[in-house]
Amino acid sequence: MIDVCLLGCGGMMPLPGRFLTSLYVRTDGRAVLIDCGEGTQTAVRCADLRFKCIDDVLITHYHADHVSGLPGLLLTLGNEGRTAPLRMHGPAGLKRVVSAMRVIVPELPYEVEIDELPAEGATFSVAGSLRAVAFPADHGMPCFGYALYLDRPGKFDPAKARRNGVPLSLWSRLQAGKALDGFRPEDVLGEARRGLSLLYSTDTRPVADMVRLGKECDLMVLEGMFGDPEKDERARVTHHMTMREAAEIARDAQPARLWLTHFSPATPHPEEYLEEMQTLFPRLQMGECGLKETLNFVQAAQQLKTLSSWE
Amino acid sequence: MIDVCLLGCGGMMPLPGRFLTSLYVRTDGRAVLIDCGEGTQTAVRCADLRFKCIDDVLITHYHADHVSGLPGLLLTLGNEGRTAPLRMHGPAGLKRVVSAMRVIVPELPYEVEIDELPAEGATFSVAGSLRAVAFPADHGMPCFGYALYLDRPGKFDPAKARRNGVPLSLWSRLQAGKALDGFRPEDVLGEARRGLSLLYSTDTRPVADMVRLGKECDLMVLEGMFGDPEKDERARVTHHMTMREAAEIARDAQPARLWLTHFSPATPHPEEYLEEMQTLFPRLQMGECGLKETLNFVQAAQQLKTLSSWE
Repeated sequence: MIDVCLLGCGGMMPLPGRFLTSLYVRTDGRAVLIDCGEGTQTAVRCADLRFKCIDDVLITHYHADHVSGLPGLLLTLGNEGRTAPLRMHGPAGLKRVVSAMRVIVPELPYEVEIDELPAEGATFSVAGSLRAVAFPADHGMPCFGYALYLDRPGKFDPAKARRNGVPLSLWSRLQAGKALDGFRPEDVLGEARRGLSLLYSTDTRPVADMVRLGKECDLMVLEGMFGDPEKDERARVTHHMTMREAAEIARDAQPARLWLTHFSPATPHPEEYLEEMQTLFPRLQMGECGLKETLNFVQAAQQLKTLSSWE
Repeated sequence: MIDVCLLGCGGMMPLPGRFLTSLYVRTDGRAVLIDCGEGTQTAVRCADLRFKCIDDVLITHYHADHVSGLPGLLLTLGNEGRTAPLRMHGPAGLKRVVSAMRVIVPELPYEVEIDELPAEGATFSVAGSLRAVAFPADHGMPCFGYALYLDRPGKFDPAKARRNGVPLSLWSRLQAGKALDGFRPEDVLGEARRGLSLLYSTDTRPVADMVRLGKECDLMVLEGMFGDPEKDERARVTHHMTMREAAEIARDAQPARLWLTHFSPATPHPEEYLEEMQTLFPRLQMGECGLKETLNFVQAAQQLKTLSSWE
């Protein structure tokens, strides 16, 4: 199960009633935060979420609206009693940005570990059990989108365990995912089952990895900076993505649902474009601050079965 | 006339419904902002105030809750079309802090001028016509309180102008405050009249300058971090000021009104202490986000006359 909350849906600058775009993803009691603009810590409180379970922070890029909330977040994590290290991941430059922001929060009761990802992207673990894949976005500067996967092992298969000569005393530990005494979990498990996945990408032109990595995922969160076709050229020039482009990506990738976010401050009412965008991808929803969804295995299986009937 | 708005009233961290402490002061269409924590730009919008008329930013000290909103403010000022220089004033270290924050807003369409004030304080002009006096606070680190004065020249005195041999053609320009042809405004004006003044000081133990510089001022805005007497020791140790201490300063300085601010996050309802604090200083008000007041010359005169009847 994965709990997801879109903390904010704004781009460029926070507005009254609209926090900057940030995503909070929690599974098994541990959480990862993607992007942290000014006000994100308040958005966490507004959404009634916890700070203490945040293990990792993923940053897409270093424009102010995606990182200006870092000093406040770091300080608040300390005030909330954090002592465990916080891991931060982002494009090259992360160390420089965090060091600069920490000029106003020099002392913290925990370590901040910096993971600068290679330009071509990387795969790494976050929030305990999530597999994160960073992929290069197209924003005219180093910028990543992130796909998150909660893998799901196969069912326990006693016949297979016996076939592989696994002693009974090891079954439960192997089933729990622990390799031991020369045996691997695969020796007692059936084929891996479909897990859960989501993809977050903002401040970018469309890139092929969105479809490839987000294929039939449970949730896509994509930038829909502009709805008005008159802004198409502006989106191209400023390396942003329009609502239409995001919907077309979803049409190709067929996620269970698509949330649009990172709305331009000049678009106070993105829902005006909802109907039009749903003609391109029906399971599209306009992001709102505090929008929550729980992704779970059963639902995912059902969704895949019913995908065609939703169209 | 001076318009004052307490943009936020929180200390340490922003909370839902409570912005961090910051004051917006405007006179004759120009404004000065004091402190700029995370969310201050949103507070400016919530209070329906303008960015473009902000000429100066005064910073008390460099704890995150007083400066973490700077990157966002600087960016938004640019997006709002600013080209005129922005002047920033604060204790030693301002250049280092602003340079660090600007790592995420490297390009701006206007100049940011840095004025690091000497440790003993300074007097300088802000927002066109205001005289600012920075005085050292006591926060265990470089920190200033600020008094702002709108001076008011004397009435035009034609008899005096004639006595001083001022040609008629120069009268109006001298009256408007312009020195010319060897004459000074004082040559045509009567004695300076009482102007307007306010004093803002937070994150500090009580200091004598608060009473001296804020004597009978029109508005005092002081930190009232804690109301509970059990926190007195904590206030001393952390170099903060209690509500009671702020009220006692006002009792000595006799401002027309006192607003308390910079409430601890552990004090969600400061109004619980209102009645008790008003026994120390009746014209005390608990700060709220967006609290506005207009200070004007006539009202100031009336207030001074009626001060004793208010007690």
